[in-house]
Amino acid sequence: MTFTAQQIADFLKGEIIGNPHTEVDNFAKIEEGKPRTITFLSNPKYTHYIYETKADIVLVNNTFTADKPISATLIKVPDAYAALASLLEMVNNATPKKTGIQEMAFVSSSAKLADDVYVGPFAYIGEKAQIAENTRIYPQAYIGDNVKIGKNVLIYSGVKIYHNCVIGDNCILHAGVVIGADGFGFSQQEGVYHKIQQIGNVILENNVEVGANTTIDRAVLGSTIIREGVKLDNLIQIAHNCEVGRHTVMAAQVGVAGSTKIEEHCVLGGQVGIGGHITIGSKSKIGAQSGIISNTPENSEIMGSPAYPVKNFFKSSVIIPKLPDIYRQINALEKELNQLKQQLSKE
Amino acid sequence: MTFTAQQIADFLKGEIIGNPHTEVDNFAKIEEGKPRTITFLSNPKYTHYIYETKADIVLVNNTFTADKPISATLIKVPDAYAALASLLEMVNNATPKKTGIQEMAFVSSSAKLADDVYVGPFAYIGEKAQIAENTRIYPQAYIGDNVKIGKNVLIYSGVKIYHNCVIGDNCILHAGVVIGADGFGFSQQEGVYHKIQQIGNVILENNVEVGANTTIDRAVLGSTIIREGVKLDNLIQIAHNCEVGRHTVMAAQVGVAGSTKIEEHCVLGGQVGIGGHITIGSKSKIGAQSGIISNTPENSEIMGSPAYPVKNFFKSSVIIPKLPDIYRQINALEKELNQLKQQLSKE
Amino acid sequence: MTFTAQQIADFLKGEIIGNPHTEVDNFAKIEEGKPRTITFLSNPKYTHYIYETKADIVLVNNTFTADKPISATLIKVPDAYAALASLLEMVNNATPKKTGIQEMAFVSSSAKLADDVYVGPFAYIGEKAQIAENTRIYPQAYIGDNVKIGKNVLIYSGVKIYHNCVIGDNCILHAGVVIGADGFGFSQQEGVYHKIQQIGNVILENNVEVGANTTIDRAVLGSTIIREGVKLDNLIQIAHNCEVGRHTVMAAQVGVAGSTKIEEHCVLGGQVGIGGHITIGSKSKIGAQSGIISNTPENSEIMGSPAYPVKNFFKSSVIIPKLPDIYRQINALEKELNQLKQQLSKE
Repeated sequence: MTFTAQQIADFLKGEIIGNPHTEVDNFAKIEEGKPRTITFLSNPKYTHYIYETKADIVLVNNTFTADKPISATLIKVPDAYAALASLLEMVNNATPKKTGIQEMAFVSSSAKLADDVYVGPFAYIGEKAQIAENTRIYPQAYIGDNVKIGKNVLIYSGVKIYHNCVIGDNCILHAGVVIGADGFGFSQQEGVYHKIQQIGNVILENNVEVGANTTIDRAVLGSTIIREGVKLDNLIQIAHNCEVGRHTVMAAQVGVAGSTKIEEHCVLGGQVGIGGHITIGSKSKIGAQSGIISNTPENSEIMGSPAYPVKNFFKSSVIIPKLPDIYRQINALEKELNQLKQQLSKE
Repeated sequence: MTFTAQQIADFLKGEIIGNPHTEVDNFAKIEEGKPRTITFLSNPKYTHYIYETKADIVLVNNTFTADKPISATLIKVPDAYAALASLLEMVNNATPKKTGIQEMAFVSSSAKLADDVYVGPFAYIGEKAQIAENTRIYPQAYIGDNVKIGKNVLIYSGVKIYHNCVIGDNCILHAGVVIGADGFGFSQQEGVYHKIQQIGNVILENNVEVGANTTIDRAVLGSTIIREGVKLDNLIQIAHNCEVGRHTVMAAQVGVAGSTKIEEHCVLGGQVGIGGHITIGSKSKIGAQSGIISNTPENSEIMGSPAYPVKNFFKSSVIIPKLPDIYRQINALEKELNQLKQQLSKE
Repeated sequence: MTFTAQQIADFLKGEIIGNPHTEVDNFAKIEEGKPRTITFLSNPKYTHYIYETKADIVLVNNTFTADKPISATLIKVPDAYAALASLLEMVNNATPKKTGIQEMAFVSSSAKLADDVYVGPFAYIGEKAQIAENTRIYPQAYIGDNVKIGKNVLIYSGVKIYHNCVIGDNCILHAGVVIGADGFGFSQQEGVYHKIQQIGNVILENNVEVGANTTIDRAVLGSTIIREGVKLDNLIQIAHNCEVGRHTVMAAQVGVAGSTKIEEHCVLGGQVGIGGHITIGSKSKIGAQSGIISNTPENSEIMGSPAYPVKNFFKSSVIIPKLPDIYRQINALEKELNQLKQQLSKE
């Protein structure tokens, strides 16, 4: 698709500095700009690239003023990064979508699919599954019996959704995601573990995105719940009976143990581990690799394993490499003090 | 399925307090009890819910005595949680199982399948694979050449088992599990890594459960072995030539490096990392996020990275946030001591 | 396949000590040697096994001299482990390879496959995909639209490669690998996260191996790049717009956040976490479970979270369990010093 600076400026309600007839047909990063691409300048650190980029159009913030001549046509907008996001979204929406049930798909006769659903080859739709309009099930995905999927959902290749789980509208599940596998529940008798059947399910509310190979286990009874707008990165583990609050985000490889509640608007760094049966208060920020083993109040900003306030974390981290020196220092002090006391007692 | 309190009490050999004709047809957690559900009270923390639950039947321990009137019918048993587990198991066993080889499955002509095996659509069974009675292979699973699978095994959708691996009786492999991918073995020459072919296999003994997206690598020579009754949670990595002892359990996201032996009845917390070529003694308990880099004796209870006795771990963890204060304190002491010495030398 | 000691010695250009007609048809570890197997002795720790092994042939280093009689035939070579690797490679090359496009595979009419490509049942090849000679696509793999795959590539069962990604020659992708899922990119407005479309791709250069269930995200713009000869173990996360330098290796469960560059010839231990937008200098070695949050110079040898020089790490790790004692010690010293000062001020 080819667009002119004028068309883009009209769409973004931006102001053109330069030639309104400049044409582009692709995006680029500013440091990798090529002819016929559009790029953007948002981070001030990258400002010097605007004078040398070969991109033909650059989106800039209204506040930008050039120090030197720029060969590209500029489009001034209130927020260049948000404007880029809208353009990407527009292009994505214009891309033709796959539709229809492909020949080599398996759809149970009791499943109910809205008319414009896509089901790719080798996808499996179980008994009594329900799939709403405009949802796309990519090749080799598995939708278990009685699963209910909302509208405008994207289920990428190889996603596995066990029986009875529920997926809300506008969700995106990336390749390899597993929803509803059994929770890790056993009763132990004389050192031998006996399985507790896990008969609950998983519920994803609307607008949830789940990264590649992330796993969310079904509840033993009731539901594991991922609330509206939650975004989970890749390779995350959410155990049985957890609840993740609205608009909480987690970076890759986080693990959350069973029956824990993470309230809304939290931000968890990569590789964080959260213990079982606790509550993380809303709007908490937890640093990468932290370990949390007890309830935390809302607005906590913590880090470490076990975690403590993030400001202290970085201060203590500076001291830890000095511990051998400190240890020597304290022992030297003790010795000196003893010598002094001995000396004084002799006097 | 509908059951009466009488039928349930007979099955559990329990005692009814209330109406033996009370009917239920589903399970619920005590705080989410609804009419026609059965629930249980095991954890004393939840006792207050029994006076307000809307569940119609509650399993309670023999030792339970009510302080106030309870609307639900009670069934007294020696262990309410174990009784729940038996009921769940009974219901699970009563659920009809899928059987037969589906039309869109691929089964090599040289594979040998017992008569009552289920093979779902798009599952692949390689050459000379052997699958024993009552085993179910879900859609899109991959069973490589010469793989041998015991009886009553559950292989969920999208499990991948490479050639020559062996799976014992009653094992459960959740979606996305990979058994027998190549171990991470390379010989390095002048900074370039050359692959060492991994020609061993993986053996899972009986009653092993493996969580979603967990990976167990094949041995370079010989076998990576997971012994009887081991339970592995999701997203765990077991490297080549490891051995995991009988009835050991690991929480999610644990990683075990190559040629390490974990003896029987160990318990590993989430995100633990175990180094290569070491032995973890039997009955050891390792706290979440720990890192183990050397042999540990049996009955170790350790935590930290690197790990040390768990009691000390929590004591030291309390001190770490105070390190900046301690550092100031020790420097102040040193200064004072020097002043004192100077003062004394002048006297 | 059966080989004589003479044939093996000729292939390896080694020297036979014993019967050149000794026959073997399998490999074994030295401690598990059986008749008709060949094994090797490389690690001196295992030397005592050579006098009792039941293997019929043992590869040994030229420098090996026996203290006692050995029943096996020996083959002396410059490097016994490298010799084993060559033998394993030879056997692997001699194993018949699957070829041809299987009946139950899906290949888009616009895809271009070289003549001798293998495509297993239930594999999906998208529109305009290109696959070069001698590459094997195992059952249930997914190759998205416009994906380009080089020659001699192994794509194991259940690998998912999203549209527009590029895979170089001689790469190996193990089961469950996901290449090109969306990067974790959102713009946040009033606590709600809006997706930024990720329109870049992933490029794997030649000779890259990727372990089971590892995920490599596509770039928002441009490419996430894995350079020649990189080896990634299982369950690793590489975020969008990262670049991993030539011949760098990472152990299992490492996570690398977005836009980070790891230069060439680095070695990362298991479960390491690398923050976003930083550079790890070439030839750096990073200990297991480390957390890196800032640029590191080349040849860094670091460990810890946050990481510091590895030598100091182990010294500080010895002190950490002593912190409660140190804390008591310092408070006792302070008290004594105060008493002493008080005593002196009275004198």
